[in-house]
Amino acid sequence: MLSKEQILAALSHVNDPELHRSLTDLKMVRDIQISGGSVEVTIALTVPNCPLKAQIEADVRAAISGLPGVEAVHVKMTAMTEEERQAIFGKPKEGAAAAYNHVQRVIAVMSGKGGVGKSLVTGLLATALAQQGYKVGVLDADITGPSIPTLFGLHGPLEPGPVGIRPVESALGIKVMSMNFLLEREDQPVIWRGPLIGSAITQLWGDVYWGDLDYLLVDLPPGTSDASLTTLQSLPVNGIIMVTTPQSLASMVVRKAVHMAQAVNTPIIGVVENMAYFTCPETGKRHDIFGASHSAEVAQAAAAPILVQLPIDPQVAAMCDAGKIEAVSLAETPALLNAFLEVVPVTK
Amino acid sequence: MLSKEQILAALSHVNDPELHRSLTDLKMVRDIQISGGSVEVTIALTVPNCPLKAQIEADVRAAISGLPGVEAVHVKMTAMTEEERQAIFGKPKEGAAAAYNHVQRVIAVMSGKGGVGKSLVTGLLATALAQQGYKVGVLDADITGPSIPTLFGLHGPLEPGPVGIRPVESALGIKVMSMNFLLEREDQPVIWRGPLIGSAITQLWGDVYWGDLDYLLVDLPPGTSDASLTTLQSLPVNGIIMVTTPQSLASMVVRKAVHMAQAVNTPIIGVVENMAYFTCPETGKRHDIFGASHSAEVAQAAAAPILVQLPIDPQVAAMCDAGKIEAVSLAETPALLNAFLEVVPVTK
Repeated sequence: MLSKEQILAALSHVNDPELHRSLTDLKMVRDIQISGGSVEVTIALTVPNCPLKAQIEADVRAAISGLPGVEAVHVKMTAMTEEERQAIFGKPKEGAAAAYNHVQRVIAVMSGKGGVGKSLVTGLLATALAQQGYKVGVLDADITGPSIPTLFGLHGPLEPGPVGIRPVESALGIKVMSMNFLLEREDQPVIWRGPLIGSAITQLWGDVYWGDLDYLLVDLPPGTSDASLTTLQSLPVNGIIMVTTPQSLASMVVRKAVHMAQAVNTPIIGVVENMAYFTCPETGKRHDIFGASHSAEVAQAAAAPILVQLPIDPQVAAMCDAGKIEAVSLAETPALLNAFLEVVPVTK
Repeated sequence: MLSKEQILAALSHVNDPELHRSLTDLKMVRDIQISGGSVEVTIALTVPNCPLKAQIEADVRAAISGLPGVEAVHVKMTAMTEEERQAIFGKPKEGAAAAYNHVQRVIAVMSGKGGVGKSLVTGLLATALAQQGYKVGVLDADITGPSIPTLFGLHGPLEPGPVGIRPVESALGIKVMSMNFLLEREDQPVIWRGPLIGSAITQLWGDVYWGDLDYLLVDLPPGTSDASLTTLQSLPVNGIIMVTTPQSLASMVVRKAVHMAQAVNTPIIGVVENMAYFTCPETGKRHDIFGASHSAEVAQAAAAPILVQLPIDPQVAAMCDAGKIEAVSLAETPALLNAFLEVVPVTK
């Protein structure tokens, strides 16, 4: 005869795939009905719209089916109430999600200068990493001028996770979080002074359920004020990619960011030169439309290699506008990916 | 016989050309020696390196030469001590210069988005206005990523004015003030949180001796945080020029700035689209390298006209890098100037 104890014992070996704790430990197993060889079990998900519902159901079915004498398994799903969730995870408090976030490498994409393509570099690199099977997140730290949601074609509303808010997932499974997901309209301004900007960034880290990631790329806004300072001081940033454009003017401002990174002791792992040139589609000739490159000055100040030079490509601009950065195929991306993986490798 | 009283009476009609008060009222006349028809007078300048020294000397000479019996005039120059200056102007206090600043129109150049060419538009417009004989100032409100000093090829150190700091003057006589004039090295970072950024901007207005200006253009940094908020709330801004680029992504972020301007009730006087296209120097063909224009969306949200579309021009980029924006001759500048003068005219 099958017993409830046998079923519970079997389920004690099934883990919640996000939380890495067993279903019995998380008090997710609610009701067990045994009738001959037929078992009906009710599982309470931590949140109603758990995206891993199907996987949990399959794991439960497999664990119970393996018991001797089981002929049929019925899995019913329900969701925990707020009180039940709090009994397990505690009252939601600021930064609580951080304890559940296991990120191998946090890399900030920085520039100091605006409009040089920080978000483009972040998006291209995140895409290339995801295509190689890495688990990737993108934290958009540009609170007042976010570009990331547009590039990936993503929007809110946000769903709660077991702890904290769940990031929005892109087509390739990149976990993305941006202030713009919290706004009613994408062109609504966020008229906040620095202290609020700083605390918004710490919340996008500590109140968001990032889970297990190989790489979290943090897309910084221009400037060396609150957003950059809070990111480099409050987030566990392992390294910085510095983005620049050929102009000497850009190089001067980007070197300010380089010196800031050095002042707060965060290593710069490499420099990306964006908008390096434009190839005329008719003549095939390369035009240095922003003049001769001064990126070497940035690389020298940063004591870091130039990882890649990216061209201006009207097609890329159009795809970014259309939210299709994951479909951009740029000849230079593999070079960027390889150079990046060489300087910040992780174990998949 | 000539008397000291006659000389003083004559000098009471000579005004300091910056302060618009007479030399006697300002206690600048120090020593008068009369020997027959020869007069020697010592003038104490309010500050040692007064750029108007020669004009004051000429005015003094003319006033005394006009007296009957005067055969020769010798003008000696000295400078007031800090104590003497304080006896006239009071102890230097924050914002004291503002009372001496007479600016007909304060226009902010804004975008929300970085790297769209706010500084370029500011520089081109300031140049065109100065060439038309307007008295122009440029306040660089981008504290952490200033571009204005590079464009105009200007640098510190700064000189004191009679009240407050004296702006640096460009070749065309444009009065320029930037945080970078206060730094030892141009690529030194300013790692300040928002409240300091805000107070730096109010100081660039209230502690700088701008004097008489027809137009003061304020070059804002990206974002809708401290710099923009302080500028629009604490400076007497009459209107905003919104700068955008063709991309839809830029349009979305710029519309945030539009909505911010509307929230703080500052009128938007026009929109400038920068980087609108690139004309291939070989084929003469126009390439919309940042895709089709979405600037109409910005103009519509702003309920303001598009003043001009500016192309990407490698020569302009090179001249900006070389500090020669005042020598840039762009076919589109007259259109920008005329559209601007139509919406914000002043009496010269």
